[in-house]
Amino acid sequence: MRVHGIPTRTIQALPDRSGVEIIDQTRLPHRYELKRLVTWQEAAEAISVMRVRGAPLIGATAAYGLALASNADTSDAALMAVASGLIETRPTAVNLRWAVERMLARLVPLSPSQRCEVAWAEAAAICEEDVAQNQAIGRHGLELIRAIQQRKGGTVNVMTHCNAGWLATVDWGTAIAPIYAAFDAGIALDVWVSETRPRNQGAALTAWELNQHGVPHTVIADNAAGHLMQKGEVDLIIVGADRVAANGDVANKIGTYLKALAANDNKVPFYVAVPGPTLDFRLHGGAGIPIEQRSASEVSHIAGRGPDGDVVEVQLTPDGSPALNPAFDVTPARLVTGLITERGVCAATPQGLAGLYPEQAR
Amino acid sequence: MRVHGIPTRTIQALPDRSGVEIIDQTRLPHRYELKRLVTWQEAAEAISVMRVRGAPLIGATAAYGLALASNADTSDAALMAVASGLIETRPTAVNLRWAVERMLARLVPLSPSQRCEVAWAEAAAICEEDVAQNQAIGRHGLELIRAIQQRKGGTVNVMTHCNAGWLATVDWGTAIAPIYAAFDAGIALDVWVSETRPRNQGAALTAWELNQHGVPHTVIADNAAGHLMQKGEVDLIIVGADRVAANGDVANKIGTYLKALAANDNKVPFYVAVPGPTLDFRLHGGAGIPIEQRSASEVSHIAGRGPDGDVVEVQLTPDGSPALNPAFDVTPARLVTGLITERGVCAATPQGLAGLYPEQAR
Repeated sequence: MRVHGIPTRTIQALPDRSGVEIIDQTRLPHRYELKRLVTWQEAAEAISVMRVRGAPLIGATAAYGLALASNADTSDAALMAVASGLIETRPTAVNLRWAVERMLARLVPLSPSQRCEVAWAEAAAICEEDVAQNQAIGRHGLELIRAIQQRKGGTVNVMTHCNAGWLATVDWGTAIAPIYAAFDAGIALDVWVSETRPRNQGAALTAWELNQHGVPHTVIADNAAGHLMQKGEVDLIIVGADRVAANGDVANKIGTYLKALAANDNKVPFYVAVPGPTLDFRLHGGAGIPIEQRSASEVSHIAGRGPDGDVVEVQLTPDGSPALNPAFDVTPARLVTGLITERGVCAATPQGLAGLYPEQAR
Repeated sequence: MRVHGIPTRTIQALPDRSGVEIIDQTRLPHRYELKRLVTWQEAAEAISVMRVRGAPLIGATAAYGLALASNADTSDAALMAVASGLIETRPTAVNLRWAVERMLARLVPLSPSQRCEVAWAEAAAICEEDVAQNQAIGRHGLELIRAIQQRKGGTVNVMTHCNAGWLATVDWGTAIAPIYAAFDAGIALDVWVSETRPRNQGAALTAWELNQHGVPHTVIADNAAGHLMQKGEVDLIIVGADRVAANGDVANKIGTYLKALAANDNKVPFYVAVPGPTLDFRLHGGAGIPIEQRSASEVSHIAGRGPDGDVVEVQLTPDGSPALNPAFDVTPARLVTGLITERGVCAATPQGLAGLYPEQAR
């Protein structure tokens, strides 16, 4: 998508394979800065501190992490050490493990001398596939939005949570892909962007990228989501996912479950946009999904642009008050109206998923 | 309750009636500052910008606002103008209107020369009654906590939202009164304090006052409430209210409804602690409660303690992204396990309320 009018991706390999360039998302929305990653450790750090985030982009970055590592050492031992180092950075999103396992499956059968070139090609392929999947999600989701517009007329009010836009992927986004597709198709839209405490990916990233693309939107406190649904101000909710179990349970950014409950209580359709690599058919249900516990400082402190224009971190809580910071929650499949995948829309059930992914659902 | 060990109230008349002293709650938790209000306009400003907040404390401050006005002019015209100026400051909490109407009912029948003295006495009486009501709420709520402790043993995990502690009242608090009573009775407690965006009354005020009293607590993002309930980490929720309709519908800080939904989904008891003056028997249901819309800047900006110790405001959203800020939502009575009042605990139903307040429910 466009930044200051220029088509941009969230991650790009340098032509000489000396590194990859990312947008440092910890600096948004106040600073737009690119950052070069040269070693796999830098890739792991970027994932860990959330310079890159969003399940698909984490997967793409991990794939390039193995490519960066292969610049230096293509031995089995090195690849295995790097693979586990990358997988450990964040536990909840399954795309990370998926991408690393795919890279290993491609590289390990080769002789070490062949691995570097193939690693870069495979990481690039993962990125291209992500873009294509998200475009397909956009096409399928567009039809849901179009149906609402044809039924009610006027502006369609879509709510989302966290950032599942192009910044969370290589391009287009998952939950936001249908919004871009609908906007580009001329459907009148307004997007409710919940700020998504504690890391504020909604207020910082979703608002920023919708702004860049010119999509009308309004930021709200996470707390306001239920009230807006009660008032009939929400026609549709679309969120992304970090992992979907075989039964349709959805792990996504903390607070997703509360939105799903309110959607259910107010008969607002609640969709989860999810590409194939985010589906975890090894897991029967959401109870098996590990929930990342992040630092309490993300709750007690927040960064923003200060009066003099600099980005500063301020403390919100009193000294001596502890905080807890679970980063994800699990929305039971019963609250999910449907899954929007690159293969089409299905019910959040074992049958629904098996219908679209018969080769994986056994 | 105690501040730095010293018993303190949130509002105190000066002995010579020249003014009242409040805690400036916009400065907490980083600064503890008292502020003197000398005119009724200063009282109105304190309510409006939330130097004082919380339904009962708003009522008490408005009562003193009329007392301050009576220092200067006790004519009918003056009292009426002041009354409507005070009522306009914040629309949702009914205690404000209740306190102003009570003051007028007491003052208007008197001759202007008698009014000043009676105004100060009546405002003081409203404060004393608030304290007594909250202590009674504490006693009734304590029994609910005790019953949980006797059933499960160990630590009782109570969740609250916003600040309905002593800072929201004259003393003791509404939702927190049972927590103080249980803590003082030696029951092992841990309190989940949801930060309560956008104004962060949980992270700033509830955490601060629990800290001052030594009550164990943990601050969470509002988004984490549902996840903790799913994990069995919440035994009981107690929140306050800004207005309760005759059918038991509850207007309270934005986000309360989401907690009530999650409580319902996870079979966690959800109680609302509410003194008589917060009950609005004139309203059949919650749909009639006006919901205050506050400034978008409360969503786009937040204040905290910066690196050099000063309190600074930082911008969270990108330039050009609008925000919306409804300050309250309405929780339907069907999601409320019970109301904890100064007269006892009742169902959130017309019958339940009529049983405790037969003189008002007609």
